[in-house]
Amino acid sequence: MNKEKIFLDIINKTISDNSYLGDDCAYLKELGLLVSMDSLVEDVHFKTSYYTPYELGKKAVLVNISDILAGGGVPLYILISLSGKLNEDFIKEFYKGANDVCDKYNVKIIGGDLVGGDKISISIVILGNGFNRNLSSLKNAKIGDNVYIKGFHGNSAKGLELLLKGEKDKNNKFIKAHLEPKLFPETSFYISENVKTKYAMTDTSDGIYYALKRISEESNVGFNIDFNLIPKEIEDKKLILFGGEDFGLLICLDKKEDYIAQYLNLTKIGTVEEGKEIKILNYENFEDLTFEHFKN
Amino acid sequence: MNKEKIFLDIINKTISDNSYLGDDCAYLKELGLLVSMDSLVEDVHFKTSYYTPYELGKKAVLVNISDILAGGGVPLYILISLSGKLNEDFIKEFYKGANDVCDKYNVKIIGGDLVGGDKISISIVILGNGFNRNLSSLKNAKIGDNVYIKGFHGNSAKGLELLLKGEKDKNNKFIKAHLEPKLFPETSFYISENVKTKYAMTDTSDGIYYALKRISEESNVGFNIDFNLIPKEIEDKKLILFGGEDFGLLICLDKKEDYIAQYLNLTKIGTVEEGKEIKILNYENFEDLTFEHFKN
Repeated sequence: MNKEKIFLDIINKTISDNSYLGDDCAYLKELGLLVSMDSLVEDVHFKTSYYTPYELGKKAVLVNISDILAGGGVPLYILISLSGKLNEDFIKEFYKGANDVCDKYNVKIIGGDLVGGDKISISIVILGNGFNRNLSSLKNAKIGDNVYIKGFHGNSAKGLELLLKGEKDKNNKFIKAHLEPKLFPETSFYISENVKTKYAMTDTSDGIYYALKRISEESNVGFNIDFNLIPKEIEDKKLILFGGEDFGLLICLDKKEDYIAQYLNLTKIGTVEEGKEIKILNYENFEDLTFEHFKN
Repeated sequence: MNKEKIFLDIINKTISDNSYLGDDCAYLKELGLLVSMDSLVEDVHFKTSYYTPYELGKKAVLVNISDILAGGGVPLYILISLSGKLNEDFIKEFYKGANDVCDKYNVKIIGGDLVGGDKISISIVILGNGFNRNLSSLKNAKIGDNVYIKGFHGNSAKGLELLLKGEKDKNNKFIKAHLEPKLFPETSFYISENVKTKYAMTDTSDGIYYALKRISEESNVGFNIDFNLIPKEIEDKKLILFGGEDFGLLICLDKKEDYIAQYLNLTKIGTVEEGKEIKILNYENFEDLTFEHFKN
């Protein structure tokens, strides 16, 4: 069990009612509202050496919109808390980026705060509409479901590698994938508006393998995944399976919803199986390299 | 114009729709929901030399509950983002404190995240019910209103002074006022459920004078305040007028609602006047000492 998991376990045991925790977003049924919170911390999630404030504003908002899409909801409102050694230029550029993404997804910035501090730390909360939609849950995968994927994987991690090596070309396709990941709102909307059965969906923010692990734990199921079926544009197998921040979608759908998967051009990469094992076919010398925020 | 104000002005000018910003909370009318976000950063808002993790969890949640009460709403749900050099004990104690306050106010913890990092940084978002209530707005003060106050002021700042001097007695009344401020939910609930006219209410989280300044700016009014009428338990006039974190309430009410103020045992400290001046009677050698987060 990794450190992050231990910490989450402690929280689950400490609070009086943990029924809202666990998924990408909490669903407040009586309000029809999906809520999610995500934070980005300088030198943990990003470095200012390769992120401009404008790009950072964009990315921070995209990460949060992705959570609502993963839940099957429609993103509506965000609040942004920004701390660090802030100056006028930084704030202006950061909010320009945040605002551009919000405009694109029709999301309103409704609040937040600014705080002095040392390193830059961004916390964003997003609210989304979940009313009258078939929302996803990590607990919904069941034996026999097909497993689908949307988006290329490993591209963002490869872009990060290039950035860390000093590559400056921001038109490079992999660097673009890292700085401004492509989301799939149409896929998410169509699924939550048309799928009739229960389904599990999550974004691949921490990599494909980690997405499988979370669903495996929450749904008490195993997986049979064929690595060769994963759509890819790079060679590095580790980056494809474990690389984070592509913000694609991983979806476990009942077999009878396969026509929807076909209509949406999803790629079937395997099936949900009995047990707890995650089998990755056509991937030699497997080793779990899941990203951990707390390595020390 | 101070630096924080300049920064907020930039945000207001940068985002496409700034209509939700300005008050202690944003009100999402179509959802009947009040939303607020507040952050606490180590060495900016607190030091771990005098805060235990348990006390920090309590305080962080109280600060946010106060925002919803200031808006006239009922606190319902919170999300907590915690970053820093975290360990199991810290997380457990922090969440125990957060949970104890949540239980007391009937608030549910619905999400958040944990992130590694250097200094401790806490961001909390709180959602509250605003449906079918008379909600406050900083824009609602009008000439002729009475200005009332609830709670003692300066006690928290005095407690902080003692803590910074090395005082360890956590039963000391002023230190208690700083570590675990008393909120006034009954006052807030009664006002938003019974006042018939528009009113302005805010908490005194950044001091009485700053609360007056915000209402003055948002409502385009001045004030006539008699310092002698402010209920006090300490001598230091500066701490009483400018000291933050008492989390009392400052309320501007139409004269015809005075019976409610009397029923709630609010203290009248002055009136709302034409113009923009904030006159503080019985306070010699006045100088604006409003707390600023961005001093450099």
